[in-house]
Amino acid sequence: MNYPNKKEHTNKTYIEYGNRGMTLESDINSSNSYYLDNNIAVIYKKPTPIKAVKVDYSKNKITEGYYEIPSTTDYNGIYKGKYIDFEAKETKSKTSFPISNIHKHQIKHLVRVIEHGGISFIIIRFTMVNKTFLIFTKDFISYFENNIKKSIPLSYIEEKGYLIKDGYNPVLDYLKIVDKFI
Amino acid sequence: MNYPNKKEHTNKTYIEYGNRGMTLESDINSSNSYYLDNNIAVIYKKPTPIKAVKVDYSKNKITEGYYEIPSTTDYNGIYKGKYIDFEAKETKSKTSFPISNIHKHQIKHLVRVIEHGGISFIIIRFTMVNKTFLIFTKDFISYFENNIKKSIPLSYIEEKGYLIKDGYNPVLDYLKIVDKFI
Repeated sequence: MNYPNKKEHTNKTYIEYGNRGMTLESDINSSNSYYLDNNIAVIYKKPTPIKAVKVDYSKNKITEGYYEIPSTTDYNGIYKGKYIDFEAKETKSKTSFPISNIHKHQIKHLVRVIEHGGISFIIIRFTMVNKTFLIFTKDFISYFENNIKKSIPLSYIEEKGYLIKDGYNPVLDYLKIVDKFI
Repeated sequence: MNYPNKKEHTNKTYIEYGNRGMTLESDINSSNSYYLDNNIAVIYKKPTPIKAVKVDYSKNKITEGYYEIPSTTDYNGIYKGKYIDFEAKETKSKTSFPISNIHKHQIKHLVRVIEHGGISFIIIRFTMVNKTFLIFTKDFISYFENNIKKSIPLSYIEEKGYLIKDGYNPVLDYLKIVDKFI
């Protein structure tokens, strides 16, 4: 008998990946699992913060809790000795990325990361045209500073950002783009 | 009239600190706020992961959720360009730190961080003797590798670890110890 997939993995999601219906979050998580299993990088999604109001401690169960706005970004970790920090967002727009999708304090956090010597960026997926881009903080920050623009045009993101090609393993090899800058 | 504490802060917890009843977690959080406000480091506690089973999306309310075991450690961030990652634990024991307090996958994570060029450690508070230590992963890892020992003696932690002195701002200046190694 054959056991073609017998190798142990920390997180098996990336093996089972196949359909195009996957979300950006699951694509990134599966890519991070791939990076982890192959000793390339240690990057995790942070849990969503929840304010637990009522807890039944005997059952370890929350009976009343509320989602809170995260203080920072969704993802961080280490790659080639560098601190990596990013946010990931999908948009259904075909022409631009609405900047209201990202909280101001998250932008502030991404800027702080650069100031302290880390690498920060956002990953934006245009779901209707099925394109995913990585754009570094320094290249989009002007849109958040002047408070005039309401969105970043796709054409600008195509020019200043980097298209992340779909792959199999990893699904979304965003570190390949980071490689160019470290 | 005088307003001695009028200065704005991102997080005010460290100003209000004063009593000895504060937990290790709040001491670290307030120190991290101090580091952040003074542009020293960007280190946050990760939210506790919760599995939300029933959610009332109209109210953004979780009516059934369960605490999960974290995949990684509680704290990470960036300091002087270095990736920092640590776990913090209190013990009521006067003589040793029970290693069952830390999950094996958390230890694995701390080791991975070193392998990728980051700095990792644990902060241990002996509440009964009111002493808080920082011990780097390389210096305690042998206790987790051989599966024989059930705890790390306080005497060993005093020898290989570093006492973090109580302060005012920051309450727990653990980065002062990290400074010696970067």
